[in-house]
Amino acid sequence: MVDVLNAVRIGGASSRQEVANHTGLGRAAVAQRVSDLVDIGLITETGVGPSTGGRPPRHLSFRIDAGHLLVGYLGATSLDVALVTAGEQILARCSEPIDIASGPDVVLDRLEMLFDAVREEAGRPAGQLWGIGVAVPGPVEFSSGRPIAPPIMPGWDRYPLRERLTHRFRVPVWVDNDVNAMAVGEWRHGVAQGHKNVVFLKIGTGIGAGLISDGRLHRGAQGSAGDVGHIQVSDDPSIVCRCGNLGCLEAIAGGGALARDGERATRDGGSAWLSQVLARSGTVTARDLAEGASHGDVASIELLRACGQHVGLTLAGIVNFFNPSLIVIGGGVAEAGDLLLAALRQVIYGRSLPLATRSLVIARSSLGDLAGLLGLATMVLDELFSPELLPIWIGEGRPAVLAMELAGRG
Amino acid sequence: MVDVLNAVRIGGASSRQEVANHTGLGRAAVAQRVSDLVDIGLITETGVGPSTGGRPPRHLSFRIDAGHLLVGYLGATSLDVALVTAGEQILARCSEPIDIASGPDVVLDRLEMLFDAVREEAGRPAGQLWGIGVAVPGPVEFSSGRPIAPPIMPGWDRYPLRERLTHRFRVPVWVDNDVNAMAVGEWRHGVAQGHKNVVFLKIGTGIGAGLISDGRLHRGAQGSAGDVGHIQVSDDPSIVCRCGNLGCLEAIAGGGALARDGERATRDGGSAWLSQVLARSGTVTARDLAEGASHGDVASIELLRACGQHVGLTLAGIVNFFNPSLIVIGGGVAEAGDLLLAALRQVIYGRSLPLATRSLVIARSSLGDLAGLLGLATMVLDELFSPELLPIWIGEGRPAVLAMELAGRG
Repeated sequence: MVDVLNAVRIGGASSRQEVANHTGLGRAAVAQRVSDLVDIGLITETGVGPSTGGRPPRHLSFRIDAGHLLVGYLGATSLDVALVTAGEQILARCSEPIDIASGPDVVLDRLEMLFDAVREEAGRPAGQLWGIGVAVPGPVEFSSGRPIAPPIMPGWDRYPLRERLTHRFRVPVWVDNDVNAMAVGEWRHGVAQGHKNVVFLKIGTGIGAGLISDGRLHRGAQGSAGDVGHIQVSDDPSIVCRCGNLGCLEAIAGGGALARDGERATRDGGSAWLSQVLARSGTVTARDLAEGASHGDVASIELLRACGQHVGLTLAGIVNFFNPSLIVIGGGVAEAGDLLLAALRQVIYGRSLPLATRSLVIARSSLGDLAGLLGLATMVLDELFSPELLPIWIGEGRPAVLAMELAGRG
Repeated sequence: MVDVLNAVRIGGASSRQEVANHTGLGRAAVAQRVSDLVDIGLITETGVGPSTGGRPPRHLSFRIDAGHLLVGYLGATSLDVALVTAGEQILARCSEPIDIASGPDVVLDRLEMLFDAVREEAGRPAGQLWGIGVAVPGPVEFSSGRPIAPPIMPGWDRYPLRERLTHRFRVPVWVDNDVNAMAVGEWRHGVAQGHKNVVFLKIGTGIGAGLISDGRLHRGAQGSAGDVGHIQVSDDPSIVCRCGNLGCLEAIAGGGALARDGERATRDGGSAWLSQVLARSGTVTARDLAEGASHGDVASIELLRACGQHVGLTLAGIVNFFNPSLIVIGGGVAEAGDLLLAALRQVIYGRSLPLATRSLVIARSSLGDLAGLLGLATMVLDELFSPELLPIWIGEGRPAVLAMELAGRG
């Protein structure tokens, strides 16, 4: 049944014949499953156009009003929440600043209040609440829905996030890493559509990657795949990372490192531009460097170029190892400008093997801060409509059953 | 039909009920497909034991005598060939030294002769010749079966290997990278059985990896994934790699680098042991270093430890990026001894993130030089019995049809 549902929901099949082509099932099997899905209320079948003799052609569509989802994207300093239809359209959205380091009790109180707020804002959305997806800025054990030793999230280690939200909302809950959510968003809704092997790299305060391997999210054995911010790129003993190791990529090229180096440039009298920025706002951001670079400030140009080179060298290794057809660069630092992207491209094309770069595309994120929310919605729907889970919950009032089942597995 | 076949062939299902459990298909569908597979000659169904009332239980098994395969593993300096049953048992095997750099005409003449030789040695093996699998020591575009710009294979760039062997043997041919074949071998027959996320690292003359992502071989967009030998690990301008770049892992820690550094140690008078080795055999190998280390030769110990540290640092980054549950170390240098593995483990556990190493196992290859041959057989069978290809070739005398189809796609 799942194969037929997903042929219509994701595959674009709109007739029984197209479903048959898509799934390889015979006519009788397709007819039976379509009929079951219509009974359950996940698919509608309507007559279209005049009959050309024989049975009139009928149009199949996924009922995007059958259910809806809540998704919450937790960043280091902000919380972004939306109510999304089963067709992955955002009906209501709101966000507010938080400090993830204030711990799960404070942050999740706000998350739950914003979930209530978007439900209210959306009026009475059609269908049931089917599930919840939450992204956090750190490693997550996907099977249990718990953050594991997340470096910038004190108090969150092994916090039972799934259980807490299940208790409050009585629907199935999935938790994943923020960058995985963005990668899925870009892959199913954004610039990475149609690619089967993708590396999405987020360069913000931290640096992390989300990986698509042959058309599936690669989470790895513990769900921590893509944690590239702590790959060693320098043996300079003065570069100490917040993770405790030396020379991590993040400690050299992340947002915090750029701010540190930007401020240092003002102390050495090297940049009048950055001195002005620092006097005005008390800090230097990647965006300030981008603006400085566009005004010809040499220190800004050099800092962004060095950042691009360090990230590029790590990506060059990743290209050899993973051979993606597309690298998507997202996050605050990446939005800083073309200089960084140009430096990064130069290193990758120079340092990776010819076969791996022959048709490699390096592009900027197309969805910006929508990537995470849309990716979470996609993720929750794909889990709900998986062969393993659909039989557990489908039918009236049953998301709660799946919710308990998942919470019990944790 | 493929799902039922593979439930019996790979999944261990031996009754209709087990097939139903394995595939999720209904009784009628299982019965129909089993009956088709018996008709085609891929499955046998035999009564077992006395009836307990009602229809007697029947035992399903894959007909391992239905067909056989030829597999050829091309190394830099040797050629290893086998005839394998559909049940992945080796019936005949032979090997001989070659120089891969002597080019495709010379090497493939030998390969074809050895293919003929093992067919003769195996007598008249049961069933048809179904297909051929060949591994080469360089990047391969899997879809076309052609080596692409392989650094140690002059004359082989874009050589139509599939077309040549198809023309000669009239069966479907697949070509892949040598390390991918070994990775699949260890995963389906060796130490990596049961793991879903695996990095197989071969440290020989060259260094390369084969990746299993969530239970499937990850080849990447062009089939060049795992080419880790040319990841930059040093910016020392004196370390020039055969690929033309500086500071590649292979140029520091590959078999050639160890030989170079071992010989250098004799010149500096640093090692009486290695001087003896060099005088005796004219070269220094990883095995010599291992023996030296076991006899307390300080230069040998230091060289192996440095090699392990360099490889370990690259693997530490890979562990963060890919989060495998198992790393398998194979290849000639890896067989050198425990010292290298110990150094490598130390760096990985020290430099990778705690979540990624929590249950990470680092093991040595269990199959040695059988890994590649068995992996090739698995690969060919998985392709033959894929939903896309099975309908093209199945039936009497039809491998030739698939052979033409594949050769035409290249």
